[in-house]
Amino acid sequence: MGDLEIRPATPDDVPAVVAMLSDDPLGSQRESVDDLTPYLSAMERVTSDPNQHLVVAVREGNVVGTLQLTIIPGLSRRGATRALVEAVRVHRDERGGGLGTQLIEWAIGESRRENCRLVELTSDATRTDAHRFYQRLGFTGSHIGFKLPL
Amino acid sequence: MGDLEIRPATPDDVPAVVAMLSDDPLGSQRESVDDLTPYLSAMERVTSDPNQHLVVAVREGNVVGTLQLTIIPGLSRRGATRALVEAVRVHRDERGGGLGTQLIEWAIGESRRENCRLVELTSDATRTDAHRFYQRLGFTGSHIGFKLPL
Repeated sequence: MGDLEIRPATPDDVPAVVAMLSDDPLGSQRESVDDLTPYLSAMERVTSDPNQHLVVAVREGNVVGTLQLTIIPGLSRRGATRALVEAVRVHRDERGGGLGTQLIEWAIGESRRENCRLVELTSDATRTDAHRFYQRLGFTGSHIGFKLPL
Repeated sequence: MGDLEIRPATPDDVPAVVAMLSDDPLGSQRESVDDLTPYLSAMERVTSDPNQHLVVAVREGNVVGTLQLTIIPGLSRRGATRALVEAVRVHRDERGGGLGTQLIEWAIGESRRENCRLVELTSDATRTDAHRFYQRLGFTGSHIGFKLPL
């Protein structure tokens, strides 16, 4: 396989990112690939916020992975800045090839560069394969993640 | 009891906020009330980020509660903006009096005003009272929360 580049996503990447968000048992129920308008508006909000790092992994010109990292300053834990990982996706053709690990390792490295003292993420309780994956990478599943749709 | 005001925290509130963060079985192990320097630096980072809402609840001139709300734009769920609640604390003298509910209801209202479509938070797996509290407020504990200290 060709070299992998992880770089900031641009509006041109939105179709490929949305396709990956949707190609997933949970994502297929809540995304709408036929109308990209809300995604392009969201992309503007993401790129105008300097604490958002939405990246894509690109191999041989194709977007094959994505991840969003949010840098969150706060007072807890002696004023520790945190990093939140969301929307991790690996293209179906790349699954099992180590790209997920490369994406999370990129997120950990970027979190260190931003002087974060904690990386956090939540994973749906039904994604048991993902839980083993995060535990192998050193994460501890110490919390319950609560959601309230508005 | 006197009227309650929920307002943005200022640097003058930092000692009271840190005291509440520390007065907690988990917080007491990771905060240091004797040296406020790292907290005051963190307060500068928080106030310079327009997507952070660190608030205090004040009754009769005393800070009796705190909460941090982070607004997070993103592509997932049709470009839904999320709100993340962290560092919820109620002063020991106010526990059991409904202030926690008022703080979370403030956070839900502010999330709606910011056009968020989801409010999320994580709670340590050992805080079972907190889990029942969030479930009563309509949250679903559907996720596992993973943390990696750096």
